[in-house]
This record gives sequence, structure tokens and C-alpha cells, in this order.
Amino acid sequence: MNIAIVLYPRFTALDAIGPYEVLSRLPGASVAFLAAEPGPLRTDNGMLTVLAERSLQDMPQPDIVLRQADRTSTWTTSVCTGSLILAAAGLLDGKRATSHWLAIEELRRLGVEPASQRVVFDGKLVTAAGVSAGIDMALTLAARIAGDTVAQAIQLGIEYDPQPPFDAGSPLKAPAEVVELLRSLSPRVQEVEAHSPAR
Amino acid sequence: MNIAIVLYPRFTALDAIGPYEVLSRLPGASVAFLAAEPGPLRTDNGMLTVLAERSLQDMPQPDIVLRQADRTSTWTTSVCTGSLILAAAGLLDGKRATSHWLAIEELRRLGVEPASQRVVFDGKLVTAAGVSAGIDMALTLAARIAGDTVAQAIQLGIEYDPQPPFDAGSPLKAPAEVVELLRSLSPRVQEVEAHSPAR
Repeated sequence: MNIAIVLYPRFTALDAIGPYEVLSRLPGASVAFLAAEPGPLRTDNGMLTVLAERSLQDMPQPDIVLRQADRTSTWTTSVCTGSLILAAAGLLDGKRATSHWLAIEELRRLGVEPASQRVVFDGKLVTAAGVSAGIDMALTLAARIAGDTVAQAIQLGIEYDPQPPFDAGSPLKAPAEVVELLRSLSPRVQEVEAHSPAR
Repeated sequence: MNIAIVLYPRFTALDAIGPYEVLSRLPGASVAFLAAEPGPLRTDNGMLTVLAERSLQDMPQPDIVLRQADRTSTWTTSVCTGSLILAAAGLLDGKRATSHWLAIEELRRLGVEPASQRVVFDGKLVTAAGVSAGIDMALTLAARIAGDTVAQAIQLGIEYDPQPPFDAGSPLKAPAEVVELLRSLSPRVQEVEAHSPAR
């Protein structure tokens, strides 16, 4: 199985690395990191540089790349606000999808029905909520691809027995002042608002 | 707060990226990725390349670097088998620590009392269990450093509301055949056995 993960400048590292760490452990899997141009890409905070080894050759528009890749892909997936890119490419038209909780209403503006779930399967389109949700998405996908035993072996291999010190990972569970703090300060929201792709 | 994450050839990406994604969100935090030599480093499976931007200058032996860094650090931490490196450097002498469940007995051989917990604090030495445990360790550390509200805001920002599709992330919970499969196949165990540092 060939797995392509599309990176772009100022991506969030865990969005990509969570699914990579799970899916690269599938038997026979090969993961390639792609970008518009091959070379170093800095993450959102500028503190980490990852190399994209291959380019999206001859396909300068990400949405066109995505449409083309989606035509032959077995699965097309996203983590976090990656679903906004899939939506802008039209791949989520008429489908249910999720995104980072701060960006979920943006999906509606792109004509997609938002689903406030951590992982949403709609046919071969699979979307995950914010950042760390990519790990859960990838494990669910690993089970569909290779069966429960393989997925459980991957989970045990990365010792994914989560024990967060707080139960504050969703806006429904976090203290109200924490939710408000994130809403008021999030550069992500401002970015999404500033750079939301026109349809 | 200056945070240094030491990379080495064939590191496991999520070991480093989980804590980075949490700790880089601490107010005023700066994260630097270091290695023996600056430049590209491939992960364990060869599928991902990350750039180490700074070197462990004039300090060719990781254990010496660690001893020196530990002298002035506020916290010294590890994820997964990183605790074997701390142990080999003598930093865990007489302390309780954890590691990947497949490597935990190796700690004992290095004179360290293994603790089968996901995150172990012993003074300023903080060790985490395998791979994904680094996220829980970093959130716990974030709360100690910046308070519960900041840690909860980070958790909500990365939407860390884990919902793995299976409860198989620890050898105590996974089906016995999955545990055996991992024990028999794990290259990590073989690697640890082949390359365990001499004391």
C-alpha cells in the first residue's frame, strides 16, 4: 500500500506524524511525504523542519492534485483543517466530515455537513478532528485495511494507552474559560478566516 | 523556556513530535532539535527525514552531553527507549523510571528500578512509556511548568480527547496473541539487545 501525506508550509507536525506513525507500521506500507516543491518545510511555529522528498509534479494546484489522486485512491483522508482543503477541492461535496473544533463551521461554508465526531467515515473519505485525532483515525483505518489484530499490534507497538492528566480535550469537556481562551487567542481561527479558499 | 530535543539516526518520529507538539505551545517556549551533527536524520523506517538544526557541539558523546545538560536543566525527560540513554549516562542511578514495555527490563540491567507507569516523575527526571506516552508526559509537565489552565488549553488546542478504536495499548490490556506477536517480531527488542550501551 502506497500512502502519500501532503505537507505544506506551516503545517502542524502532529497532524502528519500521528497517522504516519500508525500507518507506516501496516505490513507492506510505504509512506511518502509530498509537497508542492520537494525540500524543507517548516512547521506552523517555525521550530521544526521536515523534508518533503517528492513533489506534486506537474500539478501546481493542490485541489487538482487531490481531485486526480482521489480518482484512483482507495482512501482519501485528512486530519484537522486538512478537511478544508479536501472541501475546497470539492471532494467532500454532499458528504459528512469533521475538522478541528475551531474550524468546523468553516466546513459548512464550503458546502459540507459538519459532523462533531472524532473520526468520520463517509465512503472512502475519512476525516479526523484536530491534530491528535489523526492517531485514532489511522488506527481505525489500519483495522479496515489489515484487520483488528494488526491494528491492535500497531496500537500496542506505539503503547497507545492514553492517560491524559486532564479531561479537557474537547470543547464539551474543557472548562468554559479554557474554551473561551482558545477561541479568543487561536491564530488558527484567524488564519482560517484570512486564508479560507474561495470556491 | 528553552527546550532541547535530542534526535539520533533512526529515531521514532512520534517519540519526539508528541512532546514537541505539546511543549512548543507553552507560552514563551522555544524548541530546538539537536543531533550529534546538524543536518537531515531519517526515522526508524527510513520514510521520513527531519532536520536537526543544531549540533551537540564539542560534545561528541551523548552521555557526556546529557550529563552536562542535566547539571543545569530544570527538567530532564525521555520518551520510550530514550530512558535507556539517560540510564547509560548514569542520570537514572537510584531512580525510578519507565520505558517502552518491550524494553523495561533493560532498565534493570542498567541499574534502574523500572516502574510500569505511563509517566514517571522522580525529582526532575521524567520518563515516559512507549512512543505515544510522550504526549501524556508533556501535558503533565506543561501543567507543572505553566499551570493547569495552560495545560488544558494546550490539550484542547490539539483536541487530545483520545478515542482509540481498541483498548489494546498496554500489554495488560491487549489480547495475549497480540502481545506475543509483538514480542516475537519486534525489531526494537532485537535492536535494544544488539545495541544496549555498555556501562
